[in-house]
Amino acid sequence: MKELEARIKEDGRVLGADILKVDSFLNHQIDPKLMQAMGAEFARLFKDQGITKVITVEASGIAPAVMAGLSLDVPVVFARKSKSRILSDDAYTADVYSYTKQSTNQIRIDKRFLSADDHVLLIDDFLANGQALLGMKALADDAGATIVGAGIVIEKSFQPGRQAAIEAGLTNIHSLAKIAAFEDGQVVFDEAN
Amino acid sequence: MKELEARIKEDGRVLGADILKVDSFLNHQIDPKLMQAMGAEFARLFKDQGITKVITVEASGIAPAVMAGLSLDVPVVFARKSKSRILSDDAYTADVYSYTKQSTNQIRIDKRFLSADDHVLLIDDFLANGQALLGMKALADDAGATIVGAGIVIEKSFQPGRQAAIEAGLTNIHSLAKIAAFEDGQVVFDEAN
Repeated sequence: MKELEARIKEDGRVLGADILKVDSFLNHQIDPKLMQAMGAEFARLFKDQGITKVITVEASGIAPAVMAGLSLDVPVVFARKSKSRILSDDAYTADVYSYTKQSTNQIRIDKRFLSADDHVLLIDDFLANGQALLGMKALADDAGATIVGAGIVIEKSFQPGRQAAIEAGLTNIHSLAKIAAFEDGQVVFDEAN
Repeated sequence: MKELEARIKEDGRVLGADILKVDSFLNHQIDPKLMQAMGAEFARLFKDQGITKVITVEASGIAPAVMAGLSLDVPVVFARKSKSRILSDDAYTADVYSYTKQSTNQIRIDKRFLSADDHVLLIDDFLANGQALLGMKALADDAGATIVGAGIVIEKSFQPGRQAAIEAGLTNIHSLAKIAAFEDGQVVFDEAN
């Protein structure tokens, strides 16, 4: 998505070997118009696939997911994150390890909001190591829901997330921007799709 | 806002004396079309006031805030919550006590995203005891920003939040739905505005 790539070039900050900060428009400060355009693009990529629900994880996934839900005209469910591992009969739960924060969170979705009748689109802001995506897949699998695909805002394709997701059985993974590498503090996009 | 009141009547669940669960359309599962209508209503209520930025707190504030930002055509900043109190030269911070969770979180906004030039609209999903709103006010005050007002999705007007906010100097507080009481498990709206 050219508009997103241009914004990453302009406002993204490359820190160290593999960190891209996009907190000026995506995950701290948010550009609502860009989110709307991204939502429309997700809807275009996943249209006519019978999606009944968009699933994401708080907090950075919410804005793009809500805009995707708006364009697809379906509800959005954001999984809650918690440090404490609470087992509950009322919720699907999965553990998600964050390499950035070096800690494990439990993510959970109330069973009232995900069922075997659902065809879900998984949305997240980043695909790097794939842990959040695998966690969402585990919740959907527990519910017996059908996963239609995954929509990612920014994929770091030099990291193993996509491969891990494919090995876990996920298909139809679309990323709006794919980063092949960081070179001299600059972002190099992977133009293949 | 009649559409929101109708939805609360239909899908809200009253638990005990003072808890309203709206997790089927607002703060776990989200209805994007309702969020869009709420964003438009916030924009109508606060138009022509020179707003430069919408401020909210993760995670439940993000969806209504992004839709308000979309309608007002300004960026949205969501304050990050953290259990650990980290002092930083790079961020404005405030402590927020949650009566529901009986614990204190620090909320923080990077100093790059809030300044004395900003005219901010504070958005949150609930106004009950007012702690989150006072926390956001503290961040804006620290930045020297001008607070134009506060937009609340659901106010429990039998709780002291509005009074606390007014005493702290906040003006122009608009709530899309004001709940006067829960009676026999039913919501009674406060029709005054």
